Amino acid sequence: MKKLDYEKLLMIPGPTMVPNNVLTSMANPIIGHRTKEYSELLEDTIEKMKKVFMTKNDVYLITGSGTSAMDMAISNTVDKGDKVLTITNGNFGERFCKIAEVYKADVIRLENEWGDDAKPEEVREILEKNPDIKVVTVVHNETSTGVRNPIKEIGDIVKEYNALYVVDTVSSLGGDYVNVDKFNIDICVTGSQKCIAAPPGMAAISVSEKAWDVISKTETKSFYLDINAYKKRYESKKETPYTPSVSLTYAMNEALEMVLDEGLENRFKRHEKLAKATRAGLEAMGIELFAKEGARSVTVTSAKYPKGIVDSEFRELLANKYGILVAGGQAQVSGKIFRIGHMGKAREYHILGTLGAVEMAFRELGYDVNSGIDAAKEILRI
Amino acid sequence: MKKLDYEKLLMIPGPTMVPNNVLTSMANPIIGHRTKEYSELLEDTIEKMKKVFMTKNDVYLITGSGTSAMDMAISNTVDKGDKVLTITNGNFGERFCKIAEVYKADVIRLENEWGDDAKPEEVREILEKNPDIKVVTVVHNETSTGVRNPIKEIGDIVKEYNALYVVDTVSSLGGDYVNVDKFNIDICVTGSQKCIAAPPGMAAISVSEKAWDVISKTETKSFYLDINAYKKRYESKKETPYTPSVSLTYAMNEALEMVLDEGLENRFKRHEKLAKATRAGLEAMGIELFAKEGARSVTVTSAKYPKGIVDSEFRELLANKYGILVAGGQAQVSGKIFRIGHMGKAREYHILGTLGAVEMAFRELGYDVNSGIDAAKEILRI
Repeated sequence: MKKLDYEKLLMIPGPTMVPNNVLTSMANPIIGHRTKEYSELLEDTIEKMKKVFMTKNDVYLITGSGTSAMDMAISNTVDKGDKVLTITNGNFGERFCKIAEVYKADVIRLENEWGDDAKPEEVREILEKNPDIKVVTVVHNETSTGVRNPIKEIGDIVKEYNALYVVDTVSSLGGDYVNVDKFNIDICVTGSQKCIAAPPGMAAISVSEKAWDVISKTETKSFYLDINAYKKRYESKKETPYTPSVSLTYAMNEALEMVLDEGLENRFKRHEKLAKATRAGLEAMGIELFAKEGARSVTVTSAKYPKGIVDSEFRELLANKYGILVAGGQAQVSGKIFRIGHMGKAREYHILGTLGAVEMAFRELGYDVNSGIDAAKEILRI
Repeated sequence: MKKLDYEKLLMIPGPTMVPNNVLTSMANPIIGHRTKEYSELLEDTIEKMKKVFMTKNDVYLITGSGTSAMDMAISNTVDKGDKVLTITNGNFGERFCKIAEVYKADVIRLENEWGDDAKPEEVREILEKNPDIKVVTVVHNETSTGVRNPIKEIGDIVKEYNALYVVDTVSSLGGDYVNVDKFNIDICVTGSQKCIAAPPGMAAISVSEKAWDVISKTETKSFYLDINAYKKRYESKKETPYTPSVSLTYAMNEALEMVLDEGLENRFKRHEKLAKATRAGLEAMGIELFAKEGARSVTVTSAKYPKGIVDSEFRELLANKYGILVAGGQAQVSGKIFRIGHMGKAREYHILGTLGAVEMAFRELGYDVNSGIDAAKEILRI
């Protein structure tokens, strides 16, 4: 591999850039996973994770991608024929549907237009009509569309019913406000590689008392992702049931320490400011944002391509000439939108550099845009 | 954590010590997992993995522990009521039974005494009586007992029947001779953290044409471990279906390069020599080996505790006074045996250092042993 390729700016919505002290923590020697030392490392990492989740619930780390935690959430709570309400407005909401279908759930889809957010009152309507819904799933930050769903408001409604509230915060936790306990989230899942700014490969899951009650009555449907095995081994020995990624545990510990050192409030403010600056910059350029106002993510900004701009040409130019990776659209919006991730360790100069390069790329591709830099600076300097 | 703890010698049967160049490869910046650069890295790693598996079959990498690959092997081939023959003589053979039971297989156990190896002719007998057996599982190197099972001979028998041959080579591949194609292995699973000497957290699986045929007729029972998703994404884009551990891919690539640089034949010889030296050293000390002669692993040596030696006292002394980790027994042999791993990057001085420390520890605990060093040297110097 060309070593230069390693140095591209990752303005994609994950994996995000990882601070050097987190990367180099993985150069520490491997320790045995059945030792007091590893148990201490694991427990410390999980306690930090609980602070970031803002929860007193049980938390586990899984060696796997964020999808492994989504799968764990569903496979341990849903039996064949159980009603699952999936709130979807993008690719990751759809993933919850697909997972629930693998386990033969009776899936009720509450679909919103891609680019719009979920409407809590519609959730209430469906729960009223279907009091036997066992699980409600929602994606906090729909990475595929740059939309933020109102998980607090939905949580306020779900708690009035029997259903478990399962929330995917893969691309928001540590960057946007998530309070597992205050939002009444029974199962919250996240990944290492987004706002936490650790390398990909580790996922985390929180489990409420109410969720444990359901899990205890649910058939075991997976071996690797059987959460009972994680609980049993952690409670008895502060260990994982199967050999964990020791290196990624080091990295998670270091990354979470940085999150807590910065402070969650400060981190939320930083992400919000970067989001506002990105949006302002793009709009000043004359680019139309994709997500509706009021529904916009603070960790990833989606925007519509101007007519005549070809997705692959734009992103290749940005990557090869200016060394910046941004993402295209997925599924139904493939080729129609591009997405700029501004999460994890991202800060002012990343936004300014990216906006400037986007502007130059559009001009080079024949679309005349204004500069967005000044509009972004107006927000960043505050 | 005390930094000194990081420097213990890992003479456990995994995770094993990881060479510094492999560890530091993980300090490389994260790259996007949907880029040409990652696809090239993944493909190169998979091609190296195929050479180590000695196969032309399809190979995939999974972000997860070795158990995730065992689960993938079973959940994608076994439906409710299907007959699975599990050849067991230790804890990991038992794990295949448990996995098959989660998927409601009709499990036929061929159990051998722990410490003894599987008998191919007994496999034939069962296959003769049960021509409808769909899958046969065996663990090549039973880490829990230090036993090597005759996977070539069993493979010669299984190929005469319809059953798929599923082999766990987690603690042997890259250290002991495994030839997926010549041994007729339909699905071979392994982990990163044993003889390959990469950090834990990544698993690999090989899949034969015959296995694909069965998989195509098997119900999807897992989302994260649905192998069809891995196949589809790899064939179309040389990518993984979900965000992989980029850092562990770097590490696997580097570790596999070292395996191939040393040469598989040389590596097998080194492991065999270290095993012989370890056994000779322990026997010269007057310690009885646990695995029967002819059934002994070349990557991990198991030995019985002399009367009066308490497992925890012995291993703590070895760890705290001499900085060496060895493993105890699991399940039915817990407290009765200890296990020395000599795999991955282990070499002569590790064996001599460990044998000397074992000797000192036994003496300190009141059990008078001879020195095993000379006997080990007799083998190591050849």
